[in-house]
Amino acid sequence: MNQLLENHGYRESKKISVGAHAIGGSSFTVVAGPCSIESLEQFKQTAQAVKDAGATFLRGGIFKMRTYVDSFQGLGVEAFDIVKEVCRITGMPMVAEVTDPRQIEVMDPFVDVFQVGARNMHNYELLKELGKSKKPILLKRGLSAYLDELLASAEYVIRAGNEDVIFCERGIRSFERATRNTLDLSAVPYLKSKSSLPVLVDPSHGTGQSAWVVPMCLAAAAAGADGLLVEVHPDPTAALSDGQQALDLAAFSNMMNALRRILAAMDRSLQVQ
Amino acid sequence: MNQLLENHGYRESKKISVGAHAIGGSSFTVVAGPCSIESLEQFKQTAQAVKDAGATFLRGGIFKMRTYVDSFQGLGVEAFDIVKEVCRITGMPMVAEVTDPRQIEVMDPFVDVFQVGARNMHNYELLKELGKSKKPILLKRGLSAYLDELLASAEYVIRAGNEDVIFCERGIRSFERATRNTLDLSAVPYLKSKSSLPVLVDPSHGTGQSAWVVPMCLAAAAAGADGLLVEVHPDPTAALSDGQQALDLAAFSNMMNALRRILAAMDRSLQVQ
Amino acid sequence: MNQLLENHGYRESKKISVGAHAIGGSSFTVVAGPCSIESLEQFKQTAQAVKDAGATFLRGGIFKMRTYVDSFQGLGVEAFDIVKEVCRITGMPMVAEVTDPRQIEVMDPFVDVFQVGARNMHNYELLKELGKSKKPILLKRGLSAYLDELLASAEYVIRAGNEDVIFCERGIRSFERATRNTLDLSAVPYLKSKSSLPVLVDPSHGTGQSAWVVPMCLAAAAAGADGLLVEVHPDPTAALSDGQQALDLAAFSNMMNALRRILAAMDRSLQVQ
Amino acid sequence: MNQLLENHGYRESKKISVGAHAIGGSSFTVVAGPCSIESLEQFKQTAQAVKDAGATFLRGGIFKMRTYVDSFQGLGVEAFDIVKEVCRITGMPMVAEVTDPRQIEVMDPFVDVFQVGARNMHNYELLKELGKSKKPILLKRGLSAYLDELLASAEYVIRAGNEDVIFCERGIRSFERATRNTLDLSAVPYLKSKSSLPVLVDPSHGTGQSAWVVPMCLAAAAAGADGLLVEVHPDPTAALSDGQQALDLAAFSNMMNALRRILAAMDRSLQVQ
Repeated sequence: MNQLLENHGYRESKKISVGAHAIGGSSFTVVAGPCSIESLEQFKQTAQAVKDAGATFLRGGIFKMRTYVDSFQGLGVEAFDIVKEVCRITGMPMVAEVTDPRQIEVMDPFVDVFQVGARNMHNYELLKELGKSKKPILLKRGLSAYLDELLASAEYVIRAGNEDVIFCERGIRSFERATRNTLDLSAVPYLKSKSSLPVLVDPSHGTGQSAWVVPMCLAAAAAGADGLLVEVHPDPTAALSDGQQALDLAAFSNMMNALRRILAAMDRSLQVQ
Repeated sequence: MNQLLENHGYRESKKISVGAHAIGGSSFTVVAGPCSIESLEQFKQTAQAVKDAGATFLRGGIFKMRTYVDSFQGLGVEAFDIVKEVCRITGMPMVAEVTDPRQIEVMDPFVDVFQVGARNMHNYELLKELGKSKKPILLKRGLSAYLDELLASAEYVIRAGNEDVIFCERGIRSFERATRNTLDLSAVPYLKSKSSLPVLVDPSHGTGQSAWVVPMCLAAAAAGADGLLVEVHPDPTAALSDGQQALDLAAFSNMMNALRRILAAMDRSLQVQ
Repeated sequence: MNQLLENHGYRESKKISVGAHAIGGSSFTVVAGPCSIESLEQFKQTAQAVKDAGATFLRGGIFKMRTYVDSFQGLGVEAFDIVKEVCRITGMPMVAEVTDPRQIEVMDPFVDVFQVGARNMHNYELLKELGKSKKPILLKRGLSAYLDELLASAEYVIRAGNEDVIFCERGIRSFERATRNTLDLSAVPYLKSKSSLPVLVDPSHGTGQSAWVVPMCLAAAAAGADGLLVEVHPDPTAALSDGQQALDLAAFSNMMNALRRILAAMDRSLQVQ
Repeated sequence: MNQLLENHGYRESKKISVGAHAIGGSSFTVVAGPCSIESLEQFKQTAQAVKDAGATFLRGGIFKMRTYVDSFQGLGVEAFDIVKEVCRITGMPMVAEVTDPRQIEVMDPFVDVFQVGARNMHNYELLKELGKSKKPILLKRGLSAYLDELLASAEYVIRAGNEDVIFCERGIRSFERATRNTLDLSAVPYLKSKSSLPVLVDPSHGTGQSAWVVPMCLAAAAAGADGLLVEVHPDPTAALSDGQQALDLAAFSNMMNALRRILAAMDRSLQVQ
């Protein structure tokens, strides 16, 4: 990182290794993929495209948290073979959300980073179980969680034995209705001032609208984040969940090109693939 | 602006000229200065330093809006001669807040852009009076104003005859207490999608903490803002108001150097002095 | 008030006299009337009905604060003769909102209590002018004002010479969308613990929906408020502003009957007409 | 309920039986007890006192959800014998929070109503498991949950086979800091307009301060709630959790006396013991 910026709220985080890759440290990591894994074809196509564009980690929902019981709930265990195949082909590590302590064991062979969603940030029983895992935990900020509560939730994982926690700002619930959530980018310097753990930003949930995702991706990088979590879909209008906030493949690729330039302006760079 | 970004939520705003300078259009404008004008010495020193660092507009509080009746309320009319002298020396246009319709006439000879503070965004009587002015109006978003209400407030000025309105995102009031306000950078692409008026960002009020101001300045630029409003003080610890969110002269200069690089990465540049 | 309750967050406020009537002290005061004064006929009919039902003060918008420039802005000075006539007929004191320091003088002959709306709670120039008035000031809580800021705003009026300030909780802006605002009834005991000034509650703006207004009127009384501010219209569906939150005449009368019973259960009663 | 009120947002809910007692229907139910069960002595003393004062259900934390890993986490399984003994002596049904699907089976012999805390309202895996239980589920509103999301969460329980869901408003997270949460009593009429399920109110968490609890208890009754959830402790200053929001035994008894009068004013009454 630019030496100058280190005096002004920017700080290099602890590097958390995941196989040959990492989150944190000196380079910038992009985690990308669809909101939900819908089919082998959809996940494979997305994975190859985001890899071509410069992403190093895959994301994709297996067990979904949905407000309405009738909404698509994810493929569940049926997605496991898809994940295995796509990770094999692309060589990318997989980030997926775990929604119940009883899923950890079954998901373990297929997942490289366990994600705890915003609605489970306060689910301490789940956090304690994840503290026993050897894999990094990507912990999203709750919908109305104080940043100090996010830090406190990480303690549940760490005390249970797992020090590899990665924070993720994904927007908070405010009065504003123009965006799905209010992306709080000040979270990046604040969390970094209180902890050495890496901080990612999820502008997809943070804005809820693909048109605002690219500006917020670049803003997150300029604010000093360690990386991004971005929803990408080959055909957002046909997505089974959260289509309106997904970038299509071309938009993602364009964003990555602009991102490289912003990072270079800060003497940083994308993680090597 | 970078051609690529224009497909992704970035848009060049209407250029609003202020003498030889402007807000909006292709270049990026930095408005800087102390929260309150405290003395000729303090304002002159700050003005020269921010000009040297690349700012093109001066800001400085004359009539202050303070929660507590015992807080410093600004120098009021005593500041007018200071403003006149410092603007003459530096050649910079002056932005200052107007808090009462009856102030417009007396402030007019000393001010180039009238600022409407967050607490007056809904003060329609004030907005209607400012609609009769020939000078641009910098309209800050209210503490809990929907972006659509900010757009609606601008209509009060425009309908009264003044089409030169400049928006300013300065943070909203959310539940979070780690920062003074929650800076909502999504406001930048949202407002630009709904209006051609320029959008500035004020990371000083947006974060309330000088340590987070630099990251949010760069993030605002990356999000596509037309410029910044930044509080700068030669000795923040001695400031009569809002010292903890002011950058000192060196920090401001460092920020401006980093900002130039971010802008260059987007094929943009600071406004020529 | 019930002796028992005085140990548990209930407190009798200072009595602020308005002619033969009062707000605060031992009795409960109901201020009722339309959102906007629309015609002599509409205001007279409403006034007589709310008086018959037990209200002692009239309310009615003359100069309105409207988000959109094209919305009905109130009759303005045309309403003055209507107010004069209806107050003469009913003998009720008039509460009306002032939105500009320059209106105070012209409104003074027609108004018994000056109301400062939520959007002007931070308009300190207006508050200072009202501090010079001899009439009580009904100060509404701002959309996102801390209760401590409401207390601080009252200080602007008091320091300028007017000690007769009446608070009004009217709902705050939260994330919730089921109601127009979130009525914060805890404000009643909180404000009473910090100040001896009376506290009214406005469930019309607080909920924005006539169906929830009656329950919140009774809840406000049970929480220990000094009175209510209620919007009533002879034909809410035809109202020029805020019709969906107005009670019709029968609903208001029913509410008042239920209110009398709640007050009696607390050893309190409606103010004598 | 008073016939008149039924036209104005009040509605009798479905009656959910729990042994010889019930929540919902025509009578008003008070659930009371300590935040956490700390010892046999503490729980027995509290239980007998709240029963003497008129409560019909016991509450008491066994497995606690605590922000900080070092806070008291509840007695866990050690509390089971205490619960069994105190329920036997008092004959009162027990309401306790379940924080993990794996606890349901072990808690089942000791608990009559399973409570889902605010932080688990979105924990759909837990809700689905509770849908298989034969016991009623007291579902608290999430810290920043829309009321429509609370209704949607109930559907997870109902669809899984358990139709006995009881809602509980316990305050939402707003910008205000004077109270721990902002108790949203409009939730009572709103939920009742959308569902026939009973609605309780928890003024202890809703305000976080014992001084505001009594006013909010009475306000909840006046707003038409089906009952209350109240934290009571023999010595609040010595409580292991949330002491500042607990009523002591005398204050609870006083509140119950005032409550009886409010209910009578609405032609309602406390549930018979």
